[in-house]
Amino acid sequence: MAGNVYGQIFRLTTFGESHGKAIGGVIDGCPAGLKIDFDQLRYDMGRRRPGQSRLTTSRNEKDEVEFLSGIFENSTTGAPVAFIIHNKDKKSSDYDHLKNTYRPGHADFTWEKKYGIRDHRGGGRSSARETACRVVAGSFAKMLLKEAGIDCRAYVSQIGEVEANPDYSKLDLDSIEESPVRCPDKDTSDVMVYMLDQIKNNGDTVGGIVTCVIRNVPVGLGEPVFDKLDAELAKAMLSINAVKGFDIGSGFKAAQLKGSENNDIFTRRNGRIITKTNFSGGVQGGISNGQDIYFRVAFKPVSTLMSDQQSVDSSGNPVVIKGKGRHDVCVVPRAVPIVEAMAALVLADLFLRNQPARL
Amino acid sequence: MAGNVYGQIFRLTTFGESHGKAIGGVIDGCPAGLKIDFDQLRYDMGRRRPGQSRLTTSRNEKDEVEFLSGIFENSTTGAPVAFIIHNKDKKSSDYDHLKNTYRPGHADFTWEKKYGIRDHRGGGRSSARETACRVVAGSFAKMLLKEAGIDCRAYVSQIGEVEANPDYSKLDLDSIEESPVRCPDKDTSDVMVYMLDQIKNNGDTVGGIVTCVIRNVPVGLGEPVFDKLDAELAKAMLSINAVKGFDIGSGFKAAQLKGSENNDIFTRRNGRIITKTNFSGGVQGGISNGQDIYFRVAFKPVSTLMSDQQSVDSSGNPVVIKGKGRHDVCVVPRAVPIVEAMAALVLADLFLRNQPARL
Amino acid sequence: MAGNVYGQIFRLTTFGESHGKAIGGVIDGCPAGLKIDFDQLRYDMGRRRPGQSRLTTSRNEKDEVEFLSGIFENSTTGAPVAFIIHNKDKKSSDYDHLKNTYRPGHADFTWEKKYGIRDHRGGGRSSARETACRVVAGSFAKMLLKEAGIDCRAYVSQIGEVEANPDYSKLDLDSIEESPVRCPDKDTSDVMVYMLDQIKNNGDTVGGIVTCVIRNVPVGLGEPVFDKLDAELAKAMLSINAVKGFDIGSGFKAAQLKGSENNDIFTRRNGRIITKTNFSGGVQGGISNGQDIYFRVAFKPVSTLMSDQQSVDSSGNPVVIKGKGRHDVCVVPRAVPIVEAMAALVLADLFLRNQPARL
Amino acid sequence: MAGNVYGQIFRLTTFGESHGKAIGGVIDGCPAGLKIDFDQLRYDMGRRRPGQSRLTTSRNEKDEVEFLSGIFENSTTGAPVAFIIHNKDKKSSDYDHLKNTYRPGHADFTWEKKYGIRDHRGGGRSSARETACRVVAGSFAKMLLKEAGIDCRAYVSQIGEVEANPDYSKLDLDSIEESPVRCPDKDTSDVMVYMLDQIKNNGDTVGGIVTCVIRNVPVGLGEPVFDKLDAELAKAMLSINAVKGFDIGSGFKAAQLKGSENNDIFTRRNGRIITKTNFSGGVQGGISNGQDIYFRVAFKPVSTLMSDQQSVDSSGNPVVIKGKGRHDVCVVPRAVPIVEAMAALVLADLFLRNQPARL
Repeated sequence: MAGNVYGQIFRLTTFGESHGKAIGGVIDGCPAGLKIDFDQLRYDMGRRRPGQSRLTTSRNEKDEVEFLSGIFENSTTGAPVAFIIHNKDKKSSDYDHLKNTYRPGHADFTWEKKYGIRDHRGGGRSSARETACRVVAGSFAKMLLKEAGIDCRAYVSQIGEVEANPDYSKLDLDSIEESPVRCPDKDTSDVMVYMLDQIKNNGDTVGGIVTCVIRNVPVGLGEPVFDKLDAELAKAMLSINAVKGFDIGSGFKAAQLKGSENNDIFTRRNGRIITKTNFSGGVQGGISNGQDIYFRVAFKPVSTLMSDQQSVDSSGNPVVIKGKGRHDVCVVPRAVPIVEAMAALVLADLFLRNQPARL
Repeated sequence: MAGNVYGQIFRLTTFGESHGKAIGGVIDGCPAGLKIDFDQLRYDMGRRRPGQSRLTTSRNEKDEVEFLSGIFENSTTGAPVAFIIHNKDKKSSDYDHLKNTYRPGHADFTWEKKYGIRDHRGGGRSSARETACRVVAGSFAKMLLKEAGIDCRAYVSQIGEVEANPDYSKLDLDSIEESPVRCPDKDTSDVMVYMLDQIKNNGDTVGGIVTCVIRNVPVGLGEPVFDKLDAELAKAMLSINAVKGFDIGSGFKAAQLKGSENNDIFTRRNGRIITKTNFSGGVQGGISNGQDIYFRVAFKPVSTLMSDQQSVDSSGNPVVIKGKGRHDVCVVPRAVPIVEAMAALVLADLFLRNQPARL
Repeated sequence: MAGNVYGQIFRLTTFGESHGKAIGGVIDGCPAGLKIDFDQLRYDMGRRRPGQSRLTTSRNEKDEVEFLSGIFENSTTGAPVAFIIHNKDKKSSDYDHLKNTYRPGHADFTWEKKYGIRDHRGGGRSSARETACRVVAGSFAKMLLKEAGIDCRAYVSQIGEVEANPDYSKLDLDSIEESPVRCPDKDTSDVMVYMLDQIKNNGDTVGGIVTCVIRNVPVGLGEPVFDKLDAELAKAMLSINAVKGFDIGSGFKAAQLKGSENNDIFTRRNGRIITKTNFSGGVQGGISNGQDIYFRVAFKPVSTLMSDQQSVDSSGNPVVIKGKGRHDVCVVPRAVPIVEAMAALVLADLFLRNQPARL
Repeated sequence: MAGNVYGQIFRLTTFGESHGKAIGGVIDGCPAGLKIDFDQLRYDMGRRRPGQSRLTTSRNEKDEVEFLSGIFENSTTGAPVAFIIHNKDKKSSDYDHLKNTYRPGHADFTWEKKYGIRDHRGGGRSSARETACRVVAGSFAKMLLKEAGIDCRAYVSQIGEVEANPDYSKLDLDSIEESPVRCPDKDTSDVMVYMLDQIKNNGDTVGGIVTCVIRNVPVGLGEPVFDKLDAELAKAMLSINAVKGFDIGSGFKAAQLKGSENNDIFTRRNGRIITKTNFSGGVQGGISNGQDIYFRVAFKPVSTLMSDQQSVDSSGNPVVIKGKGRHDVCVVPRAVPIVEAMAALVLADLFLRNQPARL
């Protein structure tokens, strides 16, 4: 109800503030008997971690995940898996000057008006630090999906006006991590890096787009009517800080197309019914059709600028603020594992929800 | 769990198939003491109704709503409000030839694979006819929101490649209904109508975009972290048949912008803290900030074409199909009240969820 | 949230007032492919129906169930099963004198204070007529449980101070329906009938106990920690009008026992691990252990008396009231199918919830 | 879904095994602005703590509660309140001999069959140690209820066959803590203590009953139809380990009574409508009527005996076991704060759920 929970069966509850003692989460509903793949966890956490390059915040959190329950001899037991990540490298004094100030583009104002009280240090609960917990749970979701052969991969497809090849099938998704901005289109990646350096020097920031591709999804995942697979994905993505848009398959472009152009024609190949094209993005009537699921997630530019911005304090008086703290010039490279994590949480939940659908 | 429910406190469950006895719904959690505005209901239902013009399906359903419970002396009582709409003008024989056929772009294939059984008549449960129930419940949500002064309005902003002025504040939202395609930009509307006639003559269909504007929203609606206001809107919109994309505020365009361009600067006006611009679309950190909420919803073209299409039957054998039945050339004009209804359901639910947020 | 829903996966929403147009319900989450056993439904509805004998209310409702959705060619389709029962033999004028009166033992006072508005006719939403919808859904649950071999049977074990043999294994549960009070202990049944006639003649009513036995439950149903099988049963039973107590296995008697007396010793029989005794009532640690589940449900006497009772009107002025309408002298014989229905709903839901518990 | 969550708005998720790193919980939905009363917390935790007297387990856990989030300057912030309690005095080797053994009366067998894997140390997740987390959350619920004047008090009313005065209004509820067994009936308490010493010497255990009284409850709490106040209480109580029965008001005795004996007659006193008697136990039609809520909770005897018991191992071979570890001779004295905690959780949740019930 209070919004800190995602999922119906595979259910994640997160907690914690950016500068509190710890952040963490509880995964309730992970089936018993899942072998924990700690390499997967470390890999995912490493990609979300601050301080990976000069383009990301230099907050240096090792983000070591401590598991408290639900695991016995390296397997899940069916009991809730609780984990915490201690906040170590917090510099709360960086935020003292913001105690009574509403930063543009942040949740300071809305949060304070909603609750009448606000932990201002580092953005408190509204900080993107919370997404570390999603990545932990997302890794568990991926382990579960892997048992069913489902693979979930995201990458940066656009930063500012620089776009990679829009056709993911033309990209080598195994090369994502070779790019410092996680764009598997080498030339585009180089341009993005060059541009980000310039923007950073100007004390500015920029937005971008993450594309996610999910392969080997069995037919039948997704619940009609309100909990369609694409509806759940949309919610999961918009629940990530700074996300302003989502589209799937032909997406916004579908608005411009004719039915004769956009329909995916069914055919039989190797005894299996498939579609010749995949404008649907792998989802028809809210249910997976066995084709690749692919979607785009649009992120706004980081709100904290290393240059002067006007704002007001809690009394409405004008103030000028400038980012101290440690912030990214562009969030999308580090958002890649977060998008993957949320996609995996959606799929894992719908996978389990699908089990009792028929006798 | 099974996906036929929307909302946590103001909760709608829908049921019914396109060619069954009736469709309907149950609204559980509508506060007691709400006066029913039957004019609002008729107005909303009238706009969704088939057969409004030559551009929409000619299925002639009066869509009379019969209330079974929860209303006493024209007020809600706190008990669940159940309603049904009988299916009268159904022509199930139009669908006999589709019993074993998977129509391109429809949910026939995925639904059958998920459940192992399918009511093929008129699309069964996956038919857009189900949205009539959303409109009924949405009208109740609007009545509730009206008590709080909240107003929710949608219109067609794009059909195919024809776009209205993208700045809704330049449009007269009181003139939406004067346009046969519900586009309040007169010249654009004329072009849209002309274009739709042509596409219809070709037996083809086309997609479009609906824009929705919600005004007078109090600060504080929306639940962090997963149930952000924009996340709930995204899910609600993607749960509508044929929707492929959602964005809010600067939306996908935000991906191209700099932080210095996209940040909304706070200021004080008439003793109230507001933002000078509204790239956020009225939502910051997932919570309403008191500015207008506006967002776009992209619809794919209608999948049923009045021309030949290839497909397969349930054995995978090739077949050629052609729409009989009665179908729209473009769904967005009739989607306008559905977008409004879903937006109202989201807002009403979050409005009630916000009440216990603080002492 | 508003309390008109039971279940997590096999989920029933009910609606309707005693003297409104209709009562009904929506079953969401019933697996597709379940063959409908209409005989089961008629049998269960017949046993709950008023007017079965001189000992029950003479309201003559045929209680014909009309299905609106979710069924195709006599099987469930995975879509929500909606049903309604029209209110035909209502005599609302019987209740005119109660418009502003709070009947002792009824929900008139609390309901009006909670909602500020009340449909007084026949008790409105708080009428036991609502339980007809539980019986419909319970029949579906029984059909599902039957696929797994689970059998659920209730009977009257006590009326007033007259008790049947407390050991259900000594009773012939196939003879329940031969008794007009549904007590399978012939001699006790005769005494009960005699007693009820006397109490009726005095214009009074009396309480009783229903015992329920569930057999062939597989090991593993029930969710620790809060949603234990016995906890869910307790809630389901207390949700029935007039129920004041629940116990399972040795129940309240367990409070008096020593550990050495009450522990069920494990042993192996025919290669299966079982318990020698069954003081647990088939549930250990909230999870079924494969033994019979049995529990007792205590009902208070019917509150409406055919003799004068003092009360107050809504202004607090003293009034004298006397039941008109048509009422039972003792509710437990007709409560038998309701207890069974709720037990079946609990089991069916936990059965489906158990499916994703392990890899 | 997986059962580790209680509540709809005021929602507690617990986690942790008896001999894992820590147990803990997350309270989501506690309103912002609640001042934390750490004395209340210490008081409640102290009463549940093992090692309080020679009659309870000597496991010596200080049970220090560490808060990780959701609190700022001693007030709740509206963000989830996460807390952990480290397991310090665990002696897992006490349980080595039980690795493959099913203890009578415990959840070993059912848990292992459900999940296929079991953390056997100290009962793992099924240990009553989990209830410490309920007590923490219950203290928060009590703080919230105190703002509304609601007071919740439990005591031991029966151990074995020794019963206190059944009329709680004849007891001094302020003297509960003066009794080593938490029975506020001095003479009865003395007998209970004497009896427990004897039973302990015999290596046996015994059951008992806890009675709970909730005062100053406003009219209107509780949701019809399925989420009745008494239904929620029943579930909450049966969710506590070792509970076998629940009744409210006249309870099981109501089954023996006539309507003319059991009905509570309304009257007006000091301008307020009240009932002359309170056989209802403060709940009518599932909704609080403003009178005291009182109910009984029956506990079975502790299953672990300090004497030989027969059982089987996981292959079904007979074994003889005898409790090592540290165990209570009777659980009810320490169950008192747990019953209070669960009652407070139920009331706090229904209190918040009641807010959006009417305009």
